[in-house]
Amino acid sequence: MRHDGRERNQIRKVEIMKDFIIHPEGSVLITVGNTKVICNASIEDRVPPFMRGEGKGWITAEYSMLPRATEQRTIRESSKGKITGRTMEIQRLIGRALRAVVNLHELGERTIWVDCDVIQADGGTRTASITGAFVAMVIALEKLMNNGKLKTLPITDFLAAISVGIDSEHGEILDLDYKEDSSALVDMNVIMTSSGQLVEVQGTGEEATFTRSELNSMLDLAEIGIKALIEEQKAVLGDVSLIVEENLKKQGAVN
Amino acid sequence: MRHDGRERNQIRKVEIMKDFIIHPEGSVLITVGNTKVICNASIEDRVPPFMRGEGKGWITAEYSMLPRATEQRTIRESSKGKITGRTMEIQRLIGRALRAVVNLHELGERTIWVDCDVIQADGGTRTASITGAFVAMVIALEKLMNNGKLKTLPITDFLAAISVGIDSEHGEILDLDYKEDSSALVDMNVIMTSSGQLVEVQGTGEEATFTRSELNSMLDLAEIGIKALIEEQKAVLGDVSLIVEENLKKQGAVN
Amino acid sequence: MRHDGRERNQIRKVEIMKDFIIHPEGSVLITVGNTKVICNASIEDRVPPFMRGEGKGWITAEYSMLPRATEQRTIRESSKGKITGRTMEIQRLIGRALRAVVNLHELGERTIWVDCDVIQADGGTRTASITGAFVAMVIALEKLMNNGKLKTLPITDFLAAISVGIDSEHGEILDLDYKEDSSALVDMNVIMTSSGQLVEVQGTGEEATFTRSELNSMLDLAEIGIKALIEEQKAVLGDVSLIVEENLKKQGAVN
Amino acid sequence: MRHDGRERNQIRKVEIMKDFIIHPEGSVLITVGNTKVICNASIEDRVPPFMRGEGKGWITAEYSMLPRATEQRTIRESSKGKITGRTMEIQRLIGRALRAVVNLHELGERTIWVDCDVIQADGGTRTASITGAFVAMVIALEKLMNNGKLKTLPITDFLAAISVGIDSEHGEILDLDYKEDSSALVDMNVIMTSSGQLVEVQGTGEEATFTRSELNSMLDLAEIGIKALIEEQKAVLGDVSLIVEENLKKQGAVN
Amino acid sequence: MRHDGRERNQIRKVEIMKDFIIHPEGSVLITVGNTKVICNASIEDRVPPFMRGEGKGWITAEYSMLPRATEQRTIRESSKGKITGRTMEIQRLIGRALRAVVNLHELGERTIWVDCDVIQADGGTRTASITGAFVAMVIALEKLMNNGKLKTLPITDFLAAISVGIDSEHGEILDLDYKEDSSALVDMNVIMTSSGQLVEVQGTGEEATFTRSELNSMLDLAEIGIKALIEEQKAVLGDVSLIVEENLKKQGAVN
Amino acid sequence: MRHDGRERNQIRKVEIMKDFIIHPEGSVLITVGNTKVICNASIEDRVPPFMRGEGKGWITAEYSMLPRATEQRTIRESSKGKITGRTMEIQRLIGRALRAVVNLHELGERTIWVDCDVIQADGGTRTASITGAFVAMVIALEKLMNNGKLKTLPITDFLAAISVGIDSEHGEILDLDYKEDSSALVDMNVIMTSSGQLVEVQGTGEEATFTRSELNSMLDLAEIGIKALIEEQKAVLGDVSLIVEENLKKQGAVN
Repeated sequence: MRHDGRERNQIRKVEIMKDFIIHPEGSVLITVGNTKVICNASIEDRVPPFMRGEGKGWITAEYSMLPRATEQRTIRESSKGKITGRTMEIQRLIGRALRAVVNLHELGERTIWVDCDVIQADGGTRTASITGAFVAMVIALEKLMNNGKLKTLPITDFLAAISVGIDSEHGEILDLDYKEDSSALVDMNVIMTSSGQLVEVQGTGEEATFTRSELNSMLDLAEIGIKALIEEQKAVLGDVSLIVEENLKKQGAVN
Repeated sequence: MRHDGRERNQIRKVEIMKDFIIHPEGSVLITVGNTKVICNASIEDRVPPFMRGEGKGWITAEYSMLPRATEQRTIRESSKGKITGRTMEIQRLIGRALRAVVNLHELGERTIWVDCDVIQADGGTRTASITGAFVAMVIALEKLMNNGKLKTLPITDFLAAISVGIDSEHGEILDLDYKEDSSALVDMNVIMTSSGQLVEVQGTGEEATFTRSELNSMLDLAEIGIKALIEEQKAVLGDVSLIVEENLKKQGAVN
Repeated sequence: MRHDGRERNQIRKVEIMKDFIIHPEGSVLITVGNTKVICNASIEDRVPPFMRGEGKGWITAEYSMLPRATEQRTIRESSKGKITGRTMEIQRLIGRALRAVVNLHELGERTIWVDCDVIQADGGTRTASITGAFVAMVIALEKLMNNGKLKTLPITDFLAAISVGIDSEHGEILDLDYKEDSSALVDMNVIMTSSGQLVEVQGTGEEATFTRSELNSMLDLAEIGIKALIEEQKAVLGDVSLIVEENLKKQGAVN
Repeated sequence: MRHDGRERNQIRKVEIMKDFIIHPEGSVLITVGNTKVICNASIEDRVPPFMRGEGKGWITAEYSMLPRATEQRTIRESSKGKITGRTMEIQRLIGRALRAVVNLHELGERTIWVDCDVIQADGGTRTASITGAFVAMVIALEKLMNNGKLKTLPITDFLAAISVGIDSEHGEILDLDYKEDSSALVDMNVIMTSSGQLVEVQGTGEEATFTRSELNSMLDLAEIGIKALIEEQKAVLGDVSLIVEENLKKQGAVN
Repeated sequence: MRHDGRERNQIRKVEIMKDFIIHPEGSVLITVGNTKVICNASIEDRVPPFMRGEGKGWITAEYSMLPRATEQRTIRESSKGKITGRTMEIQRLIGRALRAVVNLHELGERTIWVDCDVIQADGGTRTASITGAFVAMVIALEKLMNNGKLKTLPITDFLAAISVGIDSEHGEILDLDYKEDSSALVDMNVIMTSSGQLVEVQGTGEEATFTRSELNSMLDLAEIGIKALIEEQKAVLGDVSLIVEENLKKQGAVN
Repeated sequence: MRHDGRERNQIRKVEIMKDFIIHPEGSVLITVGNTKVICNASIEDRVPPFMRGEGKGWITAEYSMLPRATEQRTIRESSKGKITGRTMEIQRLIGRALRAVVNLHELGERTIWVDCDVIQADGGTRTASITGAFVAMVIALEKLMNNGKLKTLPITDFLAAISVGIDSEHGEILDLDYKEDSSALVDMNVIMTSSGQLVEVQGTGEEATFTRSELNSMLDLAEIGIKALIEEQKAVLGDVSLIVEENLKKQGAVN
C-alpha cells in the first residue's frame, strides 16, 4: 500500500469540470488528486509566420504555475524576466502531444492556443495539463464546427497522459504524487491514445538507471491509467466524443 | 437602470471563498460579478535587504492575469520577458493599501507576499484584488497568531476597495463592470477602512475632466460600496474579525 | 513656518526657460525650487499601430532621471535593462494628463512624444514634468500651426500639476520638497486646468489614512498652486496663450 | 539501403579526438558522420548554492551551436538575448545523463561544467554531445585523480547516446542524419550504459504515433549503436577505462 | 574655410560651467559649439568586487544621450532594454582615458563614477565628455582632499580629447561638428595629456583608408586642439590646477 | 628575446585552413600561435532595412568565444542574456574593417555575415579574426562569382590585422600573446591593406601613456607583421588572389 492508501496500479481521483472560465472557446478545470490545472483553449484565425500559405493549422501551448501552487512560494517567471528550462520543456511537450491527434490540414490556417495554468500542484502537473488540454481543445473545436467554420471535427483519437515511476519500496507505481515523485528512482511520462498508440515516452533515471523489463512494466501500468483517464474525458465531452470515435474507426478502415 | 439592471449605487454580487488553495497560509477566491481573483497570502520569516534590522515587517503584492481571463487572449508577461506598466502600478497599489492597515512593528521582521491572480476579468480586478487580499492576509496572520508566532493580530482596521466612475448616460455610478469601464468619462478607485478613512483615491479623467462636486458624489457612492464589502469580509473571517474590531476600538481610545 | 521659510499655502520659486535645447520642436527647462526638468516635445507624423486609420492623434511621454539628479547616485534604468514601476507610473500619468487638454481629432494622425528628463531632483519631479511638458507641447504645436500643418491649435485648456500633502507638524501643505515628501503622512498629486476642472487626483496614505475633510483642504491648496503655475505658463507662452484662452471660451459657449 | 548507403542497423563513422583544446581539464572533438562537437569539461572546486554543505558534487552542461553549424545561418542566442527551449532541453538532458554514471559523493563538493559546442551539424548533435562529453569528463576526472585530489575515479559505468527512429521507407533505423531526421515519423533518443541499463528514453511521434512493438525494435537498434560507441570511447580513453570497468564489476558484486 | 567659417586647425567655442548640478561631488556642463554634455562625478567608498583588497581605486564611466539631443528623436536605451554597442564603446573609452591620469593607489579603495549625459549633440560628444569629465573628477577629488579624506590629489596630468578627420574638400580638419563628421572619410579621436603624451588614438577609415603621413598631420592638428582645451580646463579649475602641475613636475623629476 | 623565444619584430606561426566547416559559403580555421578562430562567411540576398533600395551591400560581423577558449572558464553571453561591451567593440571593428576593402556597390543588395568564433584564445583574437575573416569572405565571394551571381570580385585590396605593444622589458613588440598582452603598458591594434594603407589604428595606454615616436615605432612593426600575414592569405587563396591584385592595380591607375 502506498502512503495515501492507493495500490501500485491505481490512479488518483480525477475530475474534469467544463466551462470553468467564461471567455475562452474551451475551458476546463482538471483535478487529479490535489493537482488542479485550468486548461483554456483559444482559437486564432491565423498561423505563425513560418507556416503561412501551407493550408495547415498549428497548436501551441503555454504552461505556468501560480507562485503558491507549490508548498514553498516560487518566484514568478514574469518577475525573473525569463522562462525556465522546465517550463519550456513542458509547453513544447504539451503542444507536440496535442498535434499528434489533430488533423492539421482539416483544421485549416488557424492556431489553437492552449493555456495550462496550474493553480495547485501535487505531482503530475504536466500530464494533467495534457489530459485537460485535450478536452478544452475538443470543446473549442466543437464550437467552431457548430458555428459552421469547420465541416468536420479534426480530431483523430483521444489523448491522455500519465506518469509512472519506480520507487525503492514499491517498485513500479502509477500516477505519482509530489511526495512519491521526489523520491522516485525512475520517472516516466507516457502519452497515449485510446487505441493504445504511443505519442511520447520520456523515461529518466534520477541519478539511477533502469532495465528494459522495468520499462515494460511501467508501460503496462501507464496503459491502465490512460484508459481510466480517457473514460473520464468521454464522460465530460458527451456527444462530441462519438464523433472522435467515428473518426478513429474511419482511419482504421483506411489503414 | 444600468445595462445589467443595477441601480447607480448598487455593487455587483460578491462572494469570498476561504481556503481555495491548500498550500498558502491564507487563500481566498473572490468573485465580484464576473470578476474572479485568487488571492494567496504567504508569510516569509525575513524582510527585504533594505529593511533588515529595523524590527519592522513588510508587505509586497504581485498581480497577474491568466491569458484568457480576458475576452481576447493577452500575451503572458513571462513570454514578453517584462511586466507592463499597468501591472506594476496595480501591484504597487495593492501592497501600499495593505500596509496602511497593518502595524508593521507588531508584524516583526517578516514579509507578507500577496499574490492576486485574476482568472476571469470583468472590470474592477484591482479593487477586487485588494478586497480579497485583505481577507487572505488576515487568515494568514491568524494562523501565525494561533501558532504562537505572533502575540497579537497586527491589523488596525478592515480594508476594502471599489471603483466608481462617471458615465455619459447615468452620471456617477458604483462598481463598474468592463463594459461600463470602457466607456466611462471618469474612472476612480477608492480604498477605505471600516472607519471611513481614505487610504487611496485615484481619480482619472479619460480624455475628460471632472469637478470637485462630481468627485464628492463619487466618494459618497464609494462609501456605500466599501461598507457592503466589509460586511462580506466580516462574515467570511468569523471570529478573527472581532479582534480587528477591538484593535480599532483601542486605537480610537488612544487617539 | 516650514523648514525653508515657506507658508503652508506657498509654492516654491518657479521658472520656465523656453528653447532650452535646439533640436526638439518644443523645449523648456522648468525649475521648481531645486527641481529641474528638461521637457522636450517631438512631433512624429504617424500614430502607433493600434490607432492607425482613426483620424486621431496620440500623446506619449517618457520620464527619466539622471543618476546624480538625486543625492545618492541611482543606477541607470538602461544599465538595469528595465524600467522601474515608479518610472512607468509617472510616464503613463504625464501622457494621460496631457491628452485631457488636447483635441486629438484636431491633432490628426500625429504622435507627440514628450520627454521629461530630470537633471536635478528635490521633490515634485512628476508634477514639474507635467507643468513643463504642457508648455513644451504648446510650443511644438504652435510651430506646426505656423508651418501651416495645423489649422487650429488643438489645445482646449491650460494644464498644470502640483503636489500637496499632510505633515505631522504643519497639517496640509502645498508643493512639498524632497525633505517634506519623505516624512509626509499623506501625499497627493493634483492635475488641474485653468477652469478649475480636475484631470487627475492621486492621494495616498503612507502607512497612514486621511479623512474626506483633509482631502478637501488639500484640494483647496492645490487650486492655489495650480493657479500660480498657470500664470507662469501664460507669461512664458506669450501670444499663443491667447489662442488657448479663446479655445476655452468657445467650449464654454458650446457647453 | 539508406540514402547514404548505410544498413538500417548501422551507425555513421565515429571519431573521438582527445585534447582538442589546450585549456580545459578534459577536451575532445567528436565526429559522427558530418556532425562535429567540441566537448570541454571544466572542474570548479565548489558546488552551486542550493547544494552547499551536502558533501556531494554536481554536473552541469551547456550546449550551443555556431551560427553556421547548420545549412542556413541561425541567429546566435546571445544576440537574441535568450536561450531557446530546444537548447534548454538539451543541456538539461546532457547534465542529467552524465550524473547517472557519476558517484556524486565520491566527486565531493566540486562542479563539473561540460560545454558541448556544435561546430558542424548533421543530425544527432545531442547524442554526439553526450557520447563526447562522457569522454571529456572522464579525462578531466583522471587528471584530478592523478593530481591526488581524488582518491578514486567516481565513474560507475560507461555512457553513450544514440538516436533511433521510424522512417516511412525503411521502418526502424539507427543513427539518423539530418535528412533522415527531418522526414522521420518517430524520433527517439536513447542513453545507455555499457551494462545495458537505460538512463533516458525519449521517444516522440512527429504528428504521428507508434506502437509498443515499434518501441522495442527501436530499443534493439539503440543497443547495437551504444555498444559500438562505447567501444570507441574505451579505445580513446586507454588505461583509465580499465578503472571504469573495475568500478562496474565492484558494483555488480555489491548488488 | 569650413561650412561654419572655421579654419582647418580651429576648434569650436568651448565653455565649461562648474557646479551645474548641486548633488554630485563634481559637476560641470561642457559646451563645445552646439554640443552640450553634463558631466557628473560621484565618489563611492568602495571598489567593485573584482578589485577588493588590492588597495587601489577604480574609475568607471557611463554615457547617455537624451532622446532629443539629436535632430531625430532616438529611442531611449532603457526602453529598448539594452545598451547599444556605440554607448558601450564610449563609456569604456571614457573610463580608460581617465584612469591613465589618476594614481589609483593614491586614490585608495574608492570608485569614481563619471556620468556623461549629452543633452544636445552636434558631433564630438565622446571627446567633449572626456574633456568635461576630467574637470568634474578633479573637482570631486579636490573636495575629498579638502575633507581630509585624501592627503594628496591623485591626478598625474591634465587630460583632454578632441576629434580630427579627413574631409574630401579640406583634407585634415580639427574638431568636426556633426555635419562634417557625417561626410568625413577618416575619423580619429585623440586623447592626450598636457605633456603631449598620447593616451588613446582611435583612427578609422569610413569605407576608406589613410596613409601614415595623413595620420601624422591629423595628430599635429589634435595637439593644437588639446592644448586649447587644457587651457580652458586650467582656467575653470583655478588653484587646484597648480597642484596638478606640481604633480606633473615631480614625476618628471623622478623619470 | 621574448618569453617564447621570438624577436621583437617576429610574429607567431600562422596557419589558415580552408573549408574547415562544410555549410558556410566561406570557412577557414586560422591559427596564430595558440589562438584558433573559426571564421565563417555567409551570404544573404538582402540588406538590413535601413539600407534597402540603395543598391549597396552590407557586411556585418559577430564574434564570440567558447567558454573554455580561455584558461578560466568564462560565462556564455547567451546565459547572461546580453553581449559584453568588449564583444560589441570587436564585432563592430571586424565589420568596419572588412567594409573598407569591399566595393559595396559591386556587391549589390547582399549582406555578408562573418562569424568569428574563437575556440582557443592566447592573445590577438580580434586581429586573427579579421585576418581570417578576410579570407573566408573572399572565398564566399569567389563562389558567388563562379555561380554567375557576381560579375567581378568586389574586393579592392588585401586586409590583415596585427597587434603591437610596448612592454617594460623589450620596448615595442609585435604580435603579443596573452601573457605579453596582460602586462603590456601600451596595446595597439593595426589594420592595414597590402598597399600599406591604414584602415584602423587603435592604440591604448593601459594606465599609461605613449609618445608619438613610440607610436611610429609600433606602426613600423605592424607593417612587418601585416606583410607576413598577407603573404599567408595569398598562399591560401590561390588564383583568386590574382584578381584582387589586378583590382588593386586598376585602382592605382585610376587614382
